[in-house]
Amino acid sequence: MKRIAVLTSGGDAPGMNAAVRAVVRKAIKEGMEVFGINRGYAGMVEGDIFPLDAQSVSNTLSHGGTFLQSARYPEFATLEGQLAGIEQLKKHGIEGVVVIGGDGSYHGAMRLTEHGFPAVGIPGTIDNDIAGTDYTIGFDTAVNTAMEALDKIRDTSFSHKRTFVVEVMGRNAGDIALWSGIAAGADQIIIPEEKYDIKDVVAKVKDGYENKGKERHLIVLAEGVMHAEKFAELMKEAGDTSDLRATNLGHILRGGAPSPRDRVLASWMGAHAVELLLEGRGGLAVGIHNEELVESPILGTKEEGALFSLAEDGSIIVNMPHKARLDFAKLNRDIAHL
Amino acid sequence: MKRIAVLTSGGDAPGMNAAVRAVVRKAIKEGMEVFGINRGYAGMVEGDIFPLDAQSVSNTLSHGGTFLQSARYPEFATLEGQLAGIEQLKKHGIEGVVVIGGDGSYHGAMRLTEHGFPAVGIPGTIDNDIAGTDYTIGFDTAVNTAMEALDKIRDTSFSHKRTFVVEVMGRNAGDIALWSGIAAGADQIIIPEEKYDIKDVVAKVKDGYENKGKERHLIVLAEGVMHAEKFAELMKEAGDTSDLRATNLGHILRGGAPSPRDRVLASWMGAHAVELLLEGRGGLAVGIHNEELVESPILGTKEEGALFSLAEDGSIIVNMPHKARLDFAKLNRDIAHL
Amino acid sequence: MKRIAVLTSGGDAPGMNAAVRAVVRKAIKEGMEVFGINRGYAGMVEGDIFPLDAQSVSNTLSHGGTFLQSARYPEFATLEGQLAGIEQLKKHGIEGVVVIGGDGSYHGAMRLTEHGFPAVGIPGTIDNDIAGTDYTIGFDTAVNTAMEALDKIRDTSFSHKRTFVVEVMGRNAGDIALWSGIAAGADQIIIPEEKYDIKDVVAKVKDGYENKGKERHLIVLAEGVMHAEKFAELMKEAGDTSDLRATNLGHILRGGAPSPRDRVLASWMGAHAVELLLEGRGGLAVGIHNEELVESPILGTKEEGALFSLAEDGSIIVNMPHKARLDFAKLNRDIAHL
Amino acid sequence: MKRIAVLTSGGDAPGMNAAVRAVVRKAIKEGMEVFGINRGYAGMVEGDIFPLDAQSVSNTLSHGGTFLQSARYPEFATLEGQLAGIEQLKKHGIEGVVVIGGDGSYHGAMRLTEHGFPAVGIPGTIDNDIAGTDYTIGFDTAVNTAMEALDKIRDTSFSHKRTFVVEVMGRNAGDIALWSGIAAGADQIIIPEEKYDIKDVVAKVKDGYENKGKERHLIVLAEGVMHAEKFAELMKEAGDTSDLRATNLGHILRGGAPSPRDRVLASWMGAHAVELLLEGRGGLAVGIHNEELVESPILGTKEEGALFSLAEDGSIIVNMPHKARLDFAKLNRDIAHL
Repeated sequence: MKRIAVLTSGGDAPGMNAAVRAVVRKAIKEGMEVFGINRGYAGMVEGDIFPLDAQSVSNTLSHGGTFLQSARYPEFATLEGQLAGIEQLKKHGIEGVVVIGGDGSYHGAMRLTEHGFPAVGIPGTIDNDIAGTDYTIGFDTAVNTAMEALDKIRDTSFSHKRTFVVEVMGRNAGDIALWSGIAAGADQIIIPEEKYDIKDVVAKVKDGYENKGKERHLIVLAEGVMHAEKFAELMKEAGDTSDLRATNLGHILRGGAPSPRDRVLASWMGAHAVELLLEGRGGLAVGIHNEELVESPILGTKEEGALFSLAEDGSIIVNMPHKARLDFAKLNRDIAHL
Repeated sequence: MKRIAVLTSGGDAPGMNAAVRAVVRKAIKEGMEVFGINRGYAGMVEGDIFPLDAQSVSNTLSHGGTFLQSARYPEFATLEGQLAGIEQLKKHGIEGVVVIGGDGSYHGAMRLTEHGFPAVGIPGTIDNDIAGTDYTIGFDTAVNTAMEALDKIRDTSFSHKRTFVVEVMGRNAGDIALWSGIAAGADQIIIPEEKYDIKDVVAKVKDGYENKGKERHLIVLAEGVMHAEKFAELMKEAGDTSDLRATNLGHILRGGAPSPRDRVLASWMGAHAVELLLEGRGGLAVGIHNEELVESPILGTKEEGALFSLAEDGSIIVNMPHKARLDFAKLNRDIAHL
Repeated sequence: MKRIAVLTSGGDAPGMNAAVRAVVRKAIKEGMEVFGINRGYAGMVEGDIFPLDAQSVSNTLSHGGTFLQSARYPEFATLEGQLAGIEQLKKHGIEGVVVIGGDGSYHGAMRLTEHGFPAVGIPGTIDNDIAGTDYTIGFDTAVNTAMEALDKIRDTSFSHKRTFVVEVMGRNAGDIALWSGIAAGADQIIIPEEKYDIKDVVAKVKDGYENKGKERHLIVLAEGVMHAEKFAELMKEAGDTSDLRATNLGHILRGGAPSPRDRVLASWMGAHAVELLLEGRGGLAVGIHNEELVESPILGTKEEGALFSLAEDGSIIVNMPHKARLDFAKLNRDIAHL
Repeated sequence: MKRIAVLTSGGDAPGMNAAVRAVVRKAIKEGMEVFGINRGYAGMVEGDIFPLDAQSVSNTLSHGGTFLQSARYPEFATLEGQLAGIEQLKKHGIEGVVVIGGDGSYHGAMRLTEHGFPAVGIPGTIDNDIAGTDYTIGFDTAVNTAMEALDKIRDTSFSHKRTFVVEVMGRNAGDIALWSGIAAGADQIIIPEEKYDIKDVVAKVKDGYENKGKERHLIVLAEGVMHAEKFAELMKEAGDTSDLRATNLGHILRGGAPSPRDRVLASWMGAHAVELLLEGRGGLAVGIHNEELVESPILGTKEEGALFSLAEDGSIIVNMPHKARLDFAKLNRDIAHL
């Protein structure tokens, strides 16, 4: 393989630039040429493809977001879209592709591989909800950002003896809520993977103020459960009488200079994706498991260790769905003062 | 004066602890005793008053919020409330009070002085909207926090070619929006002190993407204008077709380790408030003007330089209302790429 | 077990407070009483021991250092010292001890267990050089701090086309250098676990400026190799002609608010140490391996999985010495532009 | 004036990029063309001059250092050097120059103006030691960086009951030491503008530990006094018996994302420098005084308000030398617990 391309797709995540840089540098070291594709699959189809040299990715490592930009492009789910993309790749003499992004991005990588273009996926998303990896690129940074914001809210929460419901990102996964909540000393953490009883939530708030000498109450809520405003309403309906505020950390969690862990993980995965392409292997997703890099077939049977299988009706089966660490949920209950 | 007390009142602001620390340390250095009052005027009336020594304020300097806590207490506007507070002060042998907070806190300080207890106000609020000072304690930190969040949002904004409306605190004053907006390279800054034309806002967004080569658009909105969600709706109604998001930085702006500027300003004002009490002077608010500390009568005539006067009907006249720097609004228009 | 104590020992590390908090909270939740011991084994022998309740560790989670303080105390290596410590523990009715610190701290824990006081060790040090765990508490924070400083130095390095040798802590282990170096885009990383050729180092600097279009050169050096000043001298002697500066990040790496990863790890280990004591198990060190908590005998045979064994001459054998990730050293060579 | 150029010179400072961006944007808004000059006067003489458009300075605002790079170039003090530079400026049709840097940079600006090229200086250096301005660009950021490092050192200082001598930059001016020292709760601040008695320094350390209940001692030392290692030696010779460490914050103070205050100040000064050139005015240095922009003749008589005059022997007289705020030195003595 003499020439490869790299793109970022789906929601942006801190560390994507570090992954692109590693792909570029490693490929050049191995004697390959590298092209960047702007705005994910959209840019592939439009032919927004350009050469990257070793110096061009200098100083990208520490920047949030993705300098290749990203975009939603549902058209790539169609055969027509895929063929249009492949035509562009061929035009530029590209023989393999590294795709950095989430589940949707993986599906595109699978299609490219099926059409004869080896493509390797790298998990990039802050939510940590991608199959086949213990951690995604961007997760550690998002937890850092969430924790720093929660530390700030705790200041003002104590100053006014207030209860705060703070919403953090995580549509399907409570990971950001769990990690940042434990780290910030949350009194309660509400995640989609666990049931909660709103009366119990309210009772704990009351007990904290009345019997435990608490001067604030911090509830971290994963977006996937519901919005913070709504949760606060439910609490009021369930009898909460404390000075209650709801706030949403929102989009700040997506940005910011990546943490060292995300930069190292991204660099490592990026270099490994190139190694796989060098061996002519595609249709794989890189992951980290038990502190070592692993790769899994994107599509195949469960027995092969594939991340996804196709059901008879054509729908996608997730073979190794991400699971939140419920032992961490228990840990927080053990060390919160409730 | 042998014994003074210190309290924090109104919304908390980073640097309040630094001011309390300076009051305590300076007073002890001058041979006085110092008492802390918890939860502002509420704690005063309830007698939640306790001695502070030099070591007790160690390690408070770098913490956000206020370890003395704060609370709303409208009852202190009544004569009855004031007399109850004074009774408690007398019980503890206290002869003067330093009040750290906003406008409402100043009124309490004025009443105490009228009743024979010299009280000195120190401006503590993130909004920078207090009369008699160029800067309030907490403003610089809030601008830092806002800018860091805006820097993060700019990352993700560029990655997805999105338009963001970001709401920052500031009910009456656009200062946080202006400073953080210029600092973060905002394309447009909307503040209560200036009119805006929603059609013009939308036209600039469109022109940026279509004619200026822009890949993102960042609008910083002061809370005092309206909420971000509402503003985004108005933009859509006015024809915006960009990928538009609204977000509110919310309560994180109130917390966090104070910036050096806030710590220095708070330390300086705290020490100066003690000097004023040592001279037996009360009914004054400390401020900074042109890089030097100043003090103004809280209540009096405009000619005396008083911050507030009483109208014939008893309502309060603000003699030196805070003015936003409209030259900064112009500056941003000059350097934004629009 | 009804009453346990907790102490911190050796060099301080961010996250120690989070570990103490978890020990206190978990033990109370399990119905035990908890005492804190100031200044490590020194405080134990002096009887500087005091009760801790759930509220007393509130707001410690986010603070660097250790509120229990630490101290070197070589006297505890003697039987006399140990017996004096045990006398104090008995006086306070303490039946088990959690020791947070490094290797030396573990030896003390082993001795206590031998004398009938179950003691459990938790690895706390920024260097990541303790046997029996993939990560120590404080390491992730130190890497964050080092990376942020390196990011700053890279700014000024580029501005002046300078070469920087930056020394980071790590007497025996290159882990901080490796992780922070990869994260900050170091051109070269020099660690005690790998040989280097000073002529090769200098040749790479020269080649970067002359042939690779580089405008700066960043060398991260682990303390265990030699000091930065000395390394820069060797480079000059070996013919370096670039604008070369040496700097040492020094003690800032020990402090700072712990990262979320360190807070979570510390909380998790702290709670687990209490579980072990509840089962009456001592002489163990808690660790994390492959994302799960593990415990190892501190002293014993290699076959038992003990961290240390005693040689016939009484000297200590480290059974599972920490190994730096040499694959990371190679990774950086692959992605540095050299 | 139709075409201007901008350069950065001397030691780099955070905020220089923000100043360049404002120069470029404002000039374009006023209908001018703008050129960048790489590596200061060296690049001018070598003709390393290139056009900058509005989009080219996008995303520079938040980055430390200077993307135009800087370099020492003593040759520009000679007539020959100046004429060579002017030749290049003429070749590119440039009619005016903005110079961002320190004193030496100002002298070059003065020479250019004398030769018929209006040049305006903007004060950029972290040291805050430039005549004609209350604050230089970069100072506020450096104080932030120093304070954050001092906060970290305070953690570890307390944990081990240690005395720290921490050196911060500032060859002629104690400003960084004063501001960061007050902000970080330094026990003692040693600056070149004030005498100190080493025996008194040591006595205060001893008194703190023995009589004041202090558990740490933090001494902030300005580089201009002497190096930290040397100061610690003097303390030991004068009888200090505490656990004493010396550390130098070094080059990290030069880098880092500029603070909002520095970004606003740089933007404001940059835009103003363009306004002056538009009026055809050169030989001036922009400054901020009492919260408003001012400009001073670089060379002239003291009566004209010029920053520098020439003595009869040709040596340079500084008319308005920077003065440290000795009231701040006193303030810290008032609030340190000594």
